[in-house]
Amino acid sequence: MNEYCLAVYRIYDDKADFHKKAEGIAVGLTVGSWTDLPEARKEEMQKHLGRVVSVDIYDEAGTERYADIAIAYPDVNFSRDIPALLVTVFGKLSMDGKVKLMDLKFSQRFMSAFNGPKFGLPGVRKLLGVQDRPLLMSIFKSVIGHDLEALQEQFYQQALGGVDLIKDDEILFENPLTPIERRVEACMKAARLAEQETGQKLLYAVNLTGPTSNLAAQAKKAIDAGANALLFNVLAYGFDTLHELASNPEISVPIAAHPAMAGAMYPSPHYGISAKVLLGKLMRLAGADLVLFPSPYGSVVMPKDENLAIREVLLTEDVPNNYLFSLSAVPSAELHLKPSVPVPSAGIHPGLVPWIIRDFGTDVVVNAGGGVHGHPMGAAAGGRAFRQAIDAVLSSMTLTTYAEQPQNAELAAAIQAWGVKQ
Amino acid sequence: MNEYCLAVYRIYDDKADFHKKAEGIAVGLTVGSWTDLPEARKEEMQKHLGRVVSVDIYDEAGTERYADIAIAYPDVNFSRDIPALLVTVFGKLSMDGKVKLMDLKFSQRFMSAFNGPKFGLPGVRKLLGVQDRPLLMSIFKSVIGHDLEALQEQFYQQALGGVDLIKDDEILFENPLTPIERRVEACMKAARLAEQETGQKLLYAVNLTGPTSNLAAQAKKAIDAGANALLFNVLAYGFDTLHELASNPEISVPIAAHPAMAGAMYPSPHYGISAKVLLGKLMRLAGADLVLFPSPYGSVVMPKDENLAIREVLLTEDVPNNYLFSLSAVPSAELHLKPSVPVPSAGIHPGLVPWIIRDFGTDVVVNAGGGVHGHPMGAAAGGRAFRQAIDAVLSSMTLTTYAEQPQNAELAAAIQAWGVKQ
Repeated sequence: MNEYCLAVYRIYDDKADFHKKAEGIAVGLTVGSWTDLPEARKEEMQKHLGRVVSVDIYDEAGTERYADIAIAYPDVNFSRDIPALLVTVFGKLSMDGKVKLMDLKFSQRFMSAFNGPKFGLPGVRKLLGVQDRPLLMSIFKSVIGHDLEALQEQFYQQALGGVDLIKDDEILFENPLTPIERRVEACMKAARLAEQETGQKLLYAVNLTGPTSNLAAQAKKAIDAGANALLFNVLAYGFDTLHELASNPEISVPIAAHPAMAGAMYPSPHYGISAKVLLGKLMRLAGADLVLFPSPYGSVVMPKDENLAIREVLLTEDVPNNYLFSLSAVPSAELHLKPSVPVPSAGIHPGLVPWIIRDFGTDVVVNAGGGVHGHPMGAAAGGRAFRQAIDAVLSSMTLTTYAEQPQNAELAAAIQAWGVKQ
Repeated sequence: MNEYCLAVYRIYDDKADFHKKAEGIAVGLTVGSWTDLPEARKEEMQKHLGRVVSVDIYDEAGTERYADIAIAYPDVNFSRDIPALLVTVFGKLSMDGKVKLMDLKFSQRFMSAFNGPKFGLPGVRKLLGVQDRPLLMSIFKSVIGHDLEALQEQFYQQALGGVDLIKDDEILFENPLTPIERRVEACMKAARLAEQETGQKLLYAVNLTGPTSNLAAQAKKAIDAGANALLFNVLAYGFDTLHELASNPEISVPIAAHPAMAGAMYPSPHYGISAKVLLGKLMRLAGADLVLFPSPYGSVVMPKDENLAIREVLLTEDVPNNYLFSLSAVPSAELHLKPSVPVPSAGIHPGLVPWIIRDFGTDVVVNAGGGVHGHPMGAAAGGRAFRQAIDAVLSSMTLTTYAEQPQNAELAAAIQAWGVKQ
């Protein structure tokens, strides 16, 4: 039986016949030619032929003319891996004028090759023993050129503030001062010391870098040294490499996907791949347990609707959802992938926590760098201020009121430094 | 001693202080902060600090305000691999407003980890025994759903026309009808049969696909079956994977890099990575022996200046060229990488050959799909028409004059079908 993966494109063109263009894509990227084929051959080739599902034309005075075109690609045409899918639906087409890949839907059969996140939201919550509140992540700052002792101290200060996760700087690579296994040992020791103070578990996402063929070994080295999470610059290596790492049973810790390089592909209205696909669907399909993406609040911004679209496909939708061109099959339950944890990042301070929870709900990681390290009373106080802000929102109190309580002096200081977003 | 890799960005902003912005990048993407550091620490950290090399501001009425900003990054900050370099210079920055990575230059030390193309232009010419003329490549058409016999016949017809290289369709993946080793056997048999007719050697670039960790094994399987070249969708896997394949001594055949997905990154003026870097410098650095890219002639077009910039960095410049921030070191000869062969593709018919040679010189592959298969007298005649067009140009004759000779009927028919570009 035919099953199809669906691609939705936005194509800008002042005068193209969009229906003809859609037909050209559906045929050109599958069987190559159709009308020239003898009838007998057409019957055989039917199962390889792409189909135009819809063509919605937007042609209004004063705006650029475009169409949203949905094409269904028979999944028998490609192997069940992300490179094959992307090369099919957006390999050559990406270079053919103003065209952006807006959405992807996967057939049940294609999805059968993917397990998605090994931990996902429920697994990460379980590891941390935190069920009901947003998680809090802190980011190492200015670590290039620092030694193990300095890293350990910075880690300890962040951990003391009650954060749930600490992530490496994504630009910290293998180096003689802080090689991955030594970094893990030093930081996990600091985590244990802090836990004695705070009573709280902590995941340290150590940056997984180096040659592609050595990543799995490098991950195992880190895990053997005590690493309980990994950070990975997915787009610098390709989704298939994430998929292979996430599928590897020996990599027994959550993977946090960093969006480095994503800005080369999602922001243009005319070219590239939508943030929802790039940082949402494909990350979840490939197995990212947590996904970082630019928040709508900070200096590195992404429009809020794109943020919420990412959140939806990571978390709540039955995503990557099955698209069945025929109606004779129903997605089976075991194909459902665990949700990935959304991590809107950049420009986050405690005064934004009510907005984060309003926009993203409580199944979110509040992720802060400067908002922790730049706290007037230090990094430990920075973490506490965020935890207090989260407590305030969950208690349905305003930050300002909550900060008046003497035990919440750190939140008060944060509000004084950065204000409360109104 | 400090060595630096250089990144040049084009940043659009109506009113930014570009000098301040450049300083922010140089510090933010290296040591993180600078002015706050104690003097003693500054001395230690000096070697990790990024430097602003130049800021050229373009601010003219009626055009968008932008600046070209060059930043030098100390190569001690990252490991000697392309993911580390790209994540450093364009990881987070790619998401920070309208910014495009325009150029990259590599330090001698960074380049020491790269051997570049194993064959390159001289190696490919030697394998084919063709020194003095442009090479001719033909592309399989409409091969999805076809069996080995059909492929073999199509291959044979193309080969009879005197083409030097035949490439798989980049959307042909592992499939039960034509698995890679059977495809290679069938096509190489056709190549030998054709060689008995034409006396000419031929490279078949078979499409290397599937899971990342299996690519090397898959390549070896193809080579064991007789493959004498590979086609690879580099951007679907990442440059590091190409680098690893090209560095693998067991992969003893040239690799042709396909530009699938490149259109997600190079065409926007505001975002992404320039074609020169994406399809030029990084491809050569990573070891592509041949590089396909959209020609300036066909339907999938790229502006001619971008085409020529790719050509230059693949072929003639001492590229990827060393950038030394200090003047105390001179590039050593052994770091020079072999040139990669430029393959401008799409929309090529024999009437364009004079333009291709005028624009690209003779160190180029003339690459045709429809221009071979769509020839009124068939694919073998299509190849011959191209070879005749090449001969005409090298004999300093016009195509029309050359086509008047009775032995060049194929060229005459091609001209009748597609014309001669004036």
